[in-house]
Amino acid sequence: MNLESLIRNVPDFPKPGIQFKDITTLLQDPKGFQEAIDQLAAPFTDMDIDAIAGIESRGFIFGAPMAMAMNLPFILIRKPGKLPARTISQSYSLEYGTDTIEMHVDSIHTGDKILLVDDLLATGGTMAAAVELVKKAGGVPVACTFLIELGFLGGRNKLGDTSVFSLIKYD
Amino acid sequence: MNLESLIRNVPDFPKPGIQFKDITTLLQDPKGFQEAIDQLAAPFTDMDIDAIAGIESRGFIFGAPMAMAMNLPFILIRKPGKLPARTISQSYSLEYGTDTIEMHVDSIHTGDKILLVDDLLATGGTMAAAVELVKKAGGVPVACTFLIELGFLGGRNKLGDTSVFSLIKYD
Repeated sequence: MNLESLIRNVPDFPKPGIQFKDITTLLQDPKGFQEAIDQLAAPFTDMDIDAIAGIESRGFIFGAPMAMAMNLPFILIRKPGKLPARTISQSYSLEYGTDTIEMHVDSIHTGDKILLVDDLLATGGTMAAAVELVKKAGGVPVACTFLIELGFLGGRNKLGDTSVFSLIKYD
Repeated sequence: MNLESLIRNVPDFPKPGIQFKDITTLLQDPKGFQEAIDQLAAPFTDMDIDAIAGIESRGFIFGAPMAMAMNLPFILIRKPGKLPARTISQSYSLEYGTDTIEMHVDSIHTGDKILLVDDLLATGGTMAAAVELVKKAGGVPVACTFLIELGFLGGRNKLGDTSVFSLIKYD
């Protein structure tokens, strides 16, 4: 199945000149969505992984079914102020200003091997912060995986030693 | 399995006096998460449903695996400005002010029977707006389902003729 054919290109969103990769057309194709989850999980079935962390909010759409398929705990990485128990946080730079992500402190045990999931790798800022957050919590970020990678933005260079996987790459 | 035992009670979040029902402890228990999805899907396996709509962002965590398990399209209902193609929107009242949710206009065909999913039914404002949004798009909201229902807030009274299901009810 050609997953790329299920991604819709929306020109000039969120601002003029940007070609937005819309995943909602994939989600509305049950066979395509299942195939995406199968392909996202495939490289990790023989790897030693303790939990999957998904990044709010499109990372939840792919991370939750992956965690279920792989029979692993699912950890939420969220925007500030959303998680109710004690959290740790990590800030990162945006084009203008900064942003922050949070995780419950008790969601990772020391040494836990974590697979991080998001829908799209662009400049890599959010995922790089998530990798730092996992380390700060005592975990080991073994890999980051994405449905889509905008290769021309070079985001994987921001992710250091962590392995990077993606299903659909735009160069 | 006692799913309620996997929900953590966090006192005084997001403000003093509120007992927040934290689902992250359930998500970190793979058997519990799988059981929750199985139980959420069970009432609908013999019903005629065309698509599942999940409400951002915790509704994505339950709606996506349900859509996959039931082999149905998954539709996103999101906060304003997040969906890239043409949208319709519905506003609703909060305790102070208003909020808005959006859906792609082309995600529902006239007459489509829609199952709406969210993690928690509190006062019902968001889900009532989602029900209106589905109707506005030409769809038929056949049922709303929730992992948790705060029965004492009476939210199901806001949902009109739409059937309401929940797995864990706090009276």
